Amino acid sequence: MAKKNKSALEEKKGVSVSEITNLSSIKSIQDKRKAEIDTDALTTSILNKDITALSRAITLVESKNPKHTDKANTVLKKCLPYANKSIRIGITGVPGVGKSTFIETFGKHLTSLGKRVAVLAIDPTSSITKGSILGDKTRMEELVKDNNAFIRPSASGDSLGGVARKTRESIILCEAAGFNVIIIETVGVGQSETTVHSMVDFFLLLKLAGAGDELQGIKRGIIEMADAIAINKADGDNLKRAKLAKVEFNRALHLYPEKSSQWQPKVSVCSALQNKGIDTIWEIILDYIDITSKNNYFKQKRNEQNKFWLIQTIENQLKSDFFNSPKIKKEFSKQLELIKNNETTPFAAADYLLKLN
Amino acid sequence: MAKKNKSALEEKKGVSVSEITNLSSIKSIQDKRKAEIDTDALTTSILNKDITALSRAITLVESKNPKHTDKANTVLKKCLPYANKSIRIGITGVPGVGKSTFIETFGKHLTSLGKRVAVLAIDPTSSITKGSILGDKTRMEELVKDNNAFIRPSASGDSLGGVARKTRESIILCEAAGFNVIIIETVGVGQSETTVHSMVDFFLLLKLAGAGDELQGIKRGIIEMADAIAINKADGDNLKRAKLAKVEFNRALHLYPEKSSQWQPKVSVCSALQNKGIDTIWEIILDYIDITSKNNYFKQKRNEQNKFWLIQTIENQLKSDFFNSPKIKKEFSKQLELIKNNETTPFAAADYLLKLN
Repeated sequence: MAKKNKSALEEKKGVSVSEITNLSSIKSIQDKRKAEIDTDALTTSILNKDITALSRAITLVESKNPKHTDKANTVLKKCLPYANKSIRIGITGVPGVGKSTFIETFGKHLTSLGKRVAVLAIDPTSSITKGSILGDKTRMEELVKDNNAFIRPSASGDSLGGVARKTRESIILCEAAGFNVIIIETVGVGQSETTVHSMVDFFLLLKLAGAGDELQGIKRGIIEMADAIAINKADGDNLKRAKLAKVEFNRALHLYPEKSSQWQPKVSVCSALQNKGIDTIWEIILDYIDITSKNNYFKQKRNEQNKFWLIQTIENQLKSDFFNSPKIKKEFSKQLELIKNNETTPFAAADYLLKLN
Repeated sequence: MAKKNKSALEEKKGVSVSEITNLSSIKSIQDKRKAEIDTDALTTSILNKDITALSRAITLVESKNPKHTDKANTVLKKCLPYANKSIRIGITGVPGVGKSTFIETFGKHLTSLGKRVAVLAIDPTSSITKGSILGDKTRMEELVKDNNAFIRPSASGDSLGGVARKTRESIILCEAAGFNVIIIETVGVGQSETTVHSMVDFFLLLKLAGAGDELQGIKRGIIEMADAIAINKADGDNLKRAKLAKVEFNRALHLYPEKSSQWQPKVSVCSALQNKGIDTIWEIILDYIDITSKNNYFKQKRNEQNKFWLIQTIENQLKSDFFNSPKIKKEFSKQLELIKNNETTPFAAADYLLKLN
């Protein structure tokens, strides 16, 4: 192959070399980085809470180079026995609701309690906007400097399924590196909430107290998925409106049938900017963990999520293998044309295409 | 094969033979029925509006015998050029809303206008209740005697997908037999409405004016799918409540964004029992056809439905082939166990199973 394989693990060009730089030591560093990845050493470093090693492993997981995929799978397998010991929290909300500020304040609160917090993101728009969320780490100035926090911008990928896989695998790596609270951020676009919901223990919806009908404009499915709704920016003139919104959301949540978790979703007001009500939200989450651990729902849900991802991954692959096969592609459009002209039925066409496969 | 093939086309034992019956003529009738099906003759009879031939062809379509499947496909192919010239109407509503009475009155109204009406049903519960809807034709006493009406109880099948295919193919046969209004009835169970919605031009939701919150208890998606809502049993003491419900539903419908059909769903009150308001519902449907024919949505929607069914059928088959393979079945549970014990990830397990295939 003439074209060089693109690799996320390759060195970027970076800043120009100053005259006093020792060129041979640059070479030695570069060689070391490009050298065969020692999965044993990498895993040991991750388990020793080495953030650089964690970052490298996530890059490995995100790489599209098949050689890296094998390495990634090896590291993941080695890390697995040390994973799963965390609370996974999904956070969503429309742009402008203050997600970054919330995660900054919430994350700082958690590290002050001795927790180690990893923040990941799923952003289906990132391939267009090149990382619209978490991309700019400076929006979490304090948290990014915190030794007990790890922030990783959203993985990019061709499909939400691909991004989801990378995020799921990154969770495992973060857990193996000793992070015991994993926050997955997403924006209210497409199916991203559903994706995040299917990989977290607790799903938090951030809202604003706005004018007009509070329930308008929210995708109904999202409310149904939420384990808690936090009405953010409840400060100054907004406080009264936020409290009214709380009443309204509480009423809305009671319309839904009881969840199989036996958990009644909570509504809370907070101001991430003024660090008010953040502790309450953490207590709500602890209550949830307590209840669902006792009734075994917590473990059950993780098992179901695993099964869901197993089946999802297989089904997506089966479909993409079929519909991307050049032979099928060609015949598919022919059959569509025949259907259009009433010369065949969708079912006969399906039988025909399946036999071709 | 020792076990005799079960066939829907085989003769049932029936009543015992009386002594005066001519045994050789019975034999000759039985032989004729069991004889090789002549697909050309069958198609010609269907096109000649022969109801017995139509019934036989539908039985052929519903048969699970592979020999019948081939014959059915041949007949379908021959009928296709004469199909598609009808209005397909889906009707849904919870049990007790008066679907049978509505279809009886509505159907009679249509035949009085010179239409030829076929009534089919999709009932995901029928395998359990052995045909809870349309099974008892006596509930449509008048319509069943009408020469311009054809009523066929719901097809049974192992899966909603299978039932759907049979119904879709029956539509083609009914159309070829000159029926120009096809009514597909369903009950509000599981995914049956979605299935019906994806095979009709117009989707009608039957409702009752009840006490309390009118919008409670309705699956929200159904309201969103409806092209019209008819509030039935609007007679006597109920009339006032029905009119109030109409206002409320109208308000609810306006909350949804405009449909790509440019059709604004209508709400209407009616009493099927007293034959009041039934004509209005037919006029609403004619309006819909008029608008969507002019803006080409009508044809577009049928094309999209065909594509949907093509893809659906393929995807279902791919999945069922994979997950029902004995090799996969065995390994699948093993992999699930490994995931549970943190010995592999859902993704690695998926890769493993896909490679086995």
